[in-house]
Amino acid sequence: MGKLKLGFIGYGQRGVGLLGVTLNMDDVDVVAVCDEYEDRAEAAKKKVEEKREYTPFSTTDYREILKREDVEAVVIATSWEAHVEVAIAAMKAGKYVGVEVGGAYSIEDCWRLVHTSEETGMPCMMLENCCYGKKELMCLNMVKNGDFGELVHCNGAYHHDLRNEVSSGNEIRHYRLRNYTHRNCDNYPTHALGPIAKLLNINRGNRFLSLVSMSSKARGLHEYIVNKRGKEDDLAKIDFKQGDVVTTVIKCAGGETIRLTLSITLPRAYSRDFDISGTKAYYQEETNSLYLDRDEATYEKEYGEVVAKSLWNNVETTYGKEFNHPIWKKYEEEGIKGGHGGMDWLVLRAFYESAMAKADPPIDVYDTAAWMSISTLTEDSLAMGGIPVAVPDFTNGKWIKNKDRKRNEIPTYSLAEIPETVELKG
Amino acid sequence: MGKLKLGFIGYGQRGVGLLGVTLNMDDVDVVAVCDEYEDRAEAAKKKVEEKREYTPFSTTDYREILKREDVEAVVIATSWEAHVEVAIAAMKAGKYVGVEVGGAYSIEDCWRLVHTSEETGMPCMMLENCCYGKKELMCLNMVKNGDFGELVHCNGAYHHDLRNEVSSGNEIRHYRLRNYTHRNCDNYPTHALGPIAKLLNINRGNRFLSLVSMSSKARGLHEYIVNKRGKEDDLAKIDFKQGDVVTTVIKCAGGETIRLTLSITLPRAYSRDFDISGTKAYYQEETNSLYLDRDEATYEKEYGEVVAKSLWNNVETTYGKEFNHPIWKKYEEEGIKGGHGGMDWLVLRAFYESAMAKADPPIDVYDTAAWMSISTLTEDSLAMGGIPVAVPDFTNGKWIKNKDRKRNEIPTYSLAEIPETVELKG
Repeated sequence: MGKLKLGFIGYGQRGVGLLGVTLNMDDVDVVAVCDEYEDRAEAAKKKVEEKREYTPFSTTDYREILKREDVEAVVIATSWEAHVEVAIAAMKAGKYVGVEVGGAYSIEDCWRLVHTSEETGMPCMMLENCCYGKKELMCLNMVKNGDFGELVHCNGAYHHDLRNEVSSGNEIRHYRLRNYTHRNCDNYPTHALGPIAKLLNINRGNRFLSLVSMSSKARGLHEYIVNKRGKEDDLAKIDFKQGDVVTTVIKCAGGETIRLTLSITLPRAYSRDFDISGTKAYYQEETNSLYLDRDEATYEKEYGEVVAKSLWNNVETTYGKEFNHPIWKKYEEEGIKGGHGGMDWLVLRAFYESAMAKADPPIDVYDTAAWMSISTLTEDSLAMGGIPVAVPDFTNGKWIKNKDRKRNEIPTYSLAEIPETVELKG
Repeated sequence: MGKLKLGFIGYGQRGVGLLGVTLNMDDVDVVAVCDEYEDRAEAAKKKVEEKREYTPFSTTDYREILKREDVEAVVIATSWEAHVEVAIAAMKAGKYVGVEVGGAYSIEDCWRLVHTSEETGMPCMMLENCCYGKKELMCLNMVKNGDFGELVHCNGAYHHDLRNEVSSGNEIRHYRLRNYTHRNCDNYPTHALGPIAKLLNINRGNRFLSLVSMSSKARGLHEYIVNKRGKEDDLAKIDFKQGDVVTTVIKCAGGETIRLTLSITLPRAYSRDFDISGTKAYYQEETNSLYLDRDEATYEKEYGEVVAKSLWNNVETTYGKEFNHPIWKKYEEEGIKGGHGGMDWLVLRAFYESAMAKADPPIDVYDTAAWMSISTLTEDSLAMGGIPVAVPDFTNGKWIKNKDRKRNEIPTYSLAEIPETVELKG
């Protein structure tokens, strides 16, 4: 296999991170870079020049990238609003597509992704790095091995104090500010939802059926801005539409529920609140702890603190080695590479190796569409007072047949073997 | 003030606990006891005789208790289904009513509680012990002092592995078994909701507006029973209606959201998942940790574990003394008394002291009705696929006027001063 020839579209905060990780990979050549802002396109070009012995093609028009025959695959790290447009154009141009995380603005856009992928035969993989988190993969490994029994309920969240980032939106040209000004929804569901979708075999024997969503008032951002910039600042006059805490519950065809929380405009520590409940075990991210029925006798089954403390961080001290995912065992032995604790390297490897092998990526266009759809569906539910809304079946029934589908083989770090080996019960 | 003369109705598991705590109080005489089962009524009588120098009146018919003129107040610790019937009869008989926690089976029953209390002038206080938990009162103290800024979102849960209790229901005559067999709802919302309602000034300047509820499938109990009792056991043939995890979101008039979880049929550690988000601070029960905007610089604002660890149990090590509620400071100095870490003693004191003073209890009939209503409303929402349902205003508009209402003064440990001193914003 030759080197993968990559086009890189979007060089904001996230693009900088992804390009940095990519340029440490010998089997990937970044032959073309793009950003709508001239300064950023220039910065991306310089970054490649620093690390490699060639000068990449550089442009502010992504269509110039797509026209190039030497580009086999593209990474799309633009603003949320441009993801679908660029991804569709890229598939139509015959490129392998890796698209950064984000939510959809309409169900129609999700369908267009699916149809374009089906018509062109080009995959569209959401680069959901949290699917490759150590804790998330540990739980996936346990689910595969039956350690959780039957999964019943999963929680996930995006708790991240981004008040500074959002309120710096005009200076740093960040898309969150305009989204927080005008919309109310779970605008960033996939860090929470992607790993859970993998646990629950979504689109491979299971699917999202419906959801309800409720939102708190919007107070955190305004108060932060007033304190930091004063009442007379232009941003202090914005009546933000985005509630501080959005809570969503998704019902699955298998009878499981998924609870999602978005909260980025209040003070608190970062957490994805990854929290998995099965009939035989429970995992909690906040304390990095497992509670296993098999070890019942080791827990004091009384009220309050004693039990809670006995749980604290027992994955670190007790269960970590036993349940660690094979990918992570190998990764830790060989040395963890950069980017969000190693996840970025793993997700990019999965995408690049899929593209090199001309194989289906482990996160396919149906996953991408279903995960993105949650944003616009929560927006609908919230706008109508929290009514249940249906999640479309983007596979058009193929999720049932796909239950037993063998996934393609991708070497080394990819998740390729995972989706089909987790059997749904009930 | 003379001693309070108390009638005690219901001597199951909970009644045993409450009577035990009560008999250590010198200013309360338990003059009459009752349980529908003869053996339990007898056991209650013997318990009083053991601890006191008199023999209480004993009966299997609670109406006999209510007829007695020497009974001033009653504690009702019967099955969930009997709470409202007994409470209404007791108020009509002119007794002060303290009723154990539980949910309503119809909205009509909630209204009947309210109307009976208004017509008779007799209070009906839910004995929600968790309102008196140390963590819960710490947060209430902080809210009063403005340390949370403006409250935006609160979480609460009843996570308690009761698979053994529920599946022993026939042997121990426990009402949970029949409820889990036939119903699906948040049947036990008040441990989570009561303390949050106090934080948010519900019925005193704020109220519950609507809720949505979603439920997972029911798997935990059946699997547990099959493993423990075998497939041929009668209980193994039950098709339990109660989902393992019920997630509910309540919207308040003040724009806050409250998330509730019920989960008692899966393996995990006990937790009420008490979790409070304001514009200036965040409290998390799972790690007993506070995150304060004022201390922002002390936290590493990076991804994942480092931040999470820095939060662990910092209330114990750092913030506990500063924020501890005055009631708990005093309680700890004088010595904590028994019952669920001290909460039972505090909630019973609040009720008994209110009754002795002929004063309004800190949890009134409107609170009792509103908190209980959540069970039947979640049942409605779940039955209809998660649609939003309205929460009635049991105060008929008085919640607006009550914003500034000064509560009665109750000495020592009561919560009396709390509800009106927390000002709603926005």
